[in-house]
Amino acid sequence: MKLFIKIKYDGTRYAGYQVQNNALTIQEVLNKALLDLFGFECDITGCSRTDAGVHARCFCATVQKHGESSLETGIPCEKIPLALNFRLPDDISVFYAEWVNNDFHARYGVKSKTYEYHILNSRFKDPFYVNKAYHYPKLFNEYDVLKMNEAACNICGKHDFSSFMASGSNVVDTVRTVFECNVTGIGDEIVIRISADGFLYNMVRIISGTLLEVGKGNIAPEQISDIINSKNRALAGATLPAHGLYLTEVVY
Amino acid sequence: MKLFIKIKYDGTRYAGYQVQNNALTIQEVLNKALLDLFGFECDITGCSRTDAGVHARCFCATVQKHGESSLETGIPCEKIPLALNFRLPDDISVFYAEWVNNDFHARYGVKSKTYEYHILNSRFKDPFYVNKAYHYPKLFNEYDVLKMNEAACNICGKHDFSSFMASGSNVVDTVRTVFECNVTGIGDEIVIRISADGFLYNMVRIISGTLLEVGKGNIAPEQISDIINSKNRALAGATLPAHGLYLTEVVY
Repeated sequence: MKLFIKIKYDGTRYAGYQVQNNALTIQEVLNKALLDLFGFECDITGCSRTDAGVHARCFCATVQKHGESSLETGIPCEKIPLALNFRLPDDISVFYAEWVNNDFHARYGVKSKTYEYHILNSRFKDPFYVNKAYHYPKLFNEYDVLKMNEAACNICGKHDFSSFMASGSNVVDTVRTVFECNVTGIGDEIVIRISADGFLYNMVRIISGTLLEVGKGNIAPEQISDIINSKNRALAGATLPAHGLYLTEVVY
Repeated sequence: MKLFIKIKYDGTRYAGYQVQNNALTIQEVLNKALLDLFGFECDITGCSRTDAGVHARCFCATVQKHGESSLETGIPCEKIPLALNFRLPDDISVFYAEWVNNDFHARYGVKSKTYEYHILNSRFKDPFYVNKAYHYPKLFNEYDVLKMNEAACNICGKHDFSSFMASGSNVVDTVRTVFECNVTGIGDEIVIRISADGFLYNMVRIISGTLLEVGKGNIAPEQISDIINSKNRALAGATLPAHGLYLTEVVY
């Protein structure tokens, strides 16, 4: 059996999820905590890679003994989250653990992932949103948010999302199915929520940048389909910064 | 005229609001930004003192030229928040400014202040609440929160709050009027909200600690009146940590 865990992290201090040379990553810190708890090196398979500064409210991963296909331990599964949390810094927390079969794959088994992009829409900067939301100081009204939602509807469905992929990405199949895309105003925050069977590189940040342009009145909601059909990255909005992005749900 | 400002701050890095030797405070940082903007030293009068680690979503203060009773500047009032924010670190933000008469007093003119105490009631630690809420890991149910609210009702009114004052405090008049005291469960958070005409030292943190004991079942809601009447600090709950406390509203 493999160990399946769900974690939350504040990505501010990290150069992303995936292990790198010369930069602190979530995976590296998690590896150290696992080594300390189990007494042997482990291999972690994450549900995705998140970029530097991106946060996760629910990141899924499996853990196996290094070089093996399973993990054996005398520690009861329900005690593992707390035991790992004692060995993790405050900005990473394990909140769920269960045993799964060896053929379960944390990355290829994903049916849907949900990301949220948080925009702080307040005239002045806010100490409680530092590194937690993108600050856009010109205030939107309810109609602006309605238009953003109308545009978001046009994102939904199975499309070639090349227009919303970072240039230079070498993915061959650029078709993805977006199950849900909506925009909600909650107090000072505007939250863009997108669920899909998969995401191209920077796709959520570019879609969010495009919806922001809709809110500003620079792109009309009905232009979204044209932007999709153009397969031209230049027609979509800017890539918004990483610190507004949260991975919030993973479905297997 | 004096300058009246409203600020927000994340108190984590600071030894409280009030200037101290050898410790960084909100007031000191604000003083430096004012000096840089106006070109002369200023005196700041804050609406209260907050302790190390305490946060503010709305802290009010007046500013006058050092040694004088008013402040003169050619900078339009509506430009002052942004101009100060450029000179302030990310964890302090000015979000309002207006001119007030010289006889306005930011501290003595306060009719009511509101504090919130935030408890993170989740089994596991959460990276997004580090230094922002007190973590209590044993889960309360709705009935526990109802009992906390019943107890909170008994806090309301004009009472001698000696039982809820840090021992060693030398205040003479310990009678305060609590206008509002309630407990709300919002997702993983339990928020205790208290408005009063004034607060004794550590009063909100001790009331919160007492309401927490009610949630745990260690103090019955109807015992609150006995605790008040006893004027005995030892009968109330513990002083909860500073980092869960927020000053949220000030009424003049």
